[in-house]
Amino acid sequence: MAERIILGIDPGTTIMGFGLIKVVNNSMEFMVLNELQLSKYDHHYLKLKHIFNRTLELIDNYNPDEIAIEAPFFGKNVQSMLKLGRAQGVAMSAGLSRDIPITEYSPKKIKMAITGNGNASKEQVAKMLQSLLGLKTLPKNLDSTDGLAAAVCHFYNAGKGDNQKKYTGWKAFIAQNPSKVK
Amino acid sequence: MAERIILGIDPGTTIMGFGLIKVVNNSMEFMVLNELQLSKYDHHYLKLKHIFNRTLELIDNYNPDEIAIEAPFFGKNVQSMLKLGRAQGVAMSAGLSRDIPITEYSPKKIKMAITGNGNASKEQVAKMLQSLLGLKTLPKNLDSTDGLAAAVCHFYNAGKGDNQKKYTGWKAFIAQNPSKVK
Repeated sequence: MAERIILGIDPGTTIMGFGLIKVVNNSMEFMVLNELQLSKYDHHYLKLKHIFNRTLELIDNYNPDEIAIEAPFFGKNVQSMLKLGRAQGVAMSAGLSRDIPITEYSPKKIKMAITGNGNASKEQVAKMLQSLLGLKTLPKNLDSTDGLAAAVCHFYNAGKGDNQKKYTGWKAFIAQNPSKVK
Repeated sequence: MAERIILGIDPGTTIMGFGLIKVVNNSMEFMVLNELQLSKYDHHYLKLKHIFNRTLELIDNYNPDEIAIEAPFFGKNVQSMLKLGRAQGVAMSAGLSRDIPITEYSPKKIKMAITGNGNASKEQVAKMLQSLLGLKTLPKNLDSTDGLAAAVCHFYNAGKGDNQKKYTGWKAFIAQNPSKVK
């Protein structure tokens, strides 16, 4: 495919950062960098509903070929991980419902892909994104760049996500694993 | 409403139990008790995809007025809670996408509602369900009764879920809290 669009999402419970890039002849073009503010909704279901709706809207508006998700696998406690899992599940549902391949990347892998340092700061990641994609300005809240960073990481990894976290698409999976689908 | 249908779901990562009851003039009628086996899918996304699709299918086939979800809030470790959160989030997405009110109940609350004992065994809960709903047989795997149990719990609690876990519906929420929706 000479041209493809990657949607990157960082689904959290206070903010969902998202970004879109277009890959043309193996080079990146910046499309979108934005965030969905969730802290104003104090009801958990409202947050989930907004994550689901906005992700579906992004998919339907921009027709991404692939989705990259920043997915931390460790957290402070079981309560916060349950909430994070729900936010991830809801964002994934939007992709699953449109049969778009989803690949997960850990925060460390994303930082590594963009800066060469898995422990880079948010500022370092943002500055590299700005340089790589020719962004004129950076958002005040650097958290919102995490979605875009996931999309760029996906471009560099060419879909090679964390081990066993790769999802090459529902249809592709069935084609590759007919015995696993009953 | 003289007649309403309640869909109960227990979304897990190895099995999703689900059940449907019809409430007619404030008494319960049994409709469906079944399970979705997920252990055969070793790929996490396949499980999530099946949970999403089956829940959406149940909603579209039976038109439930309300959804009750068994939602444990504690778990062994952050990894399992993240996966459980994703399974819950995906099941919730199906309900959210159809604007159906969702109420969560802890396992303890469900056992309490059905047997009067928050620490009742699976067998005790299943026997009570059998008696309450006139089930001729019980499934071999009692885990699959947890979804139906959530529906019955919801009937007894009349929508009073765990504190702050209640969701009276997207439209109702907006009507009640116009200032929180921007």
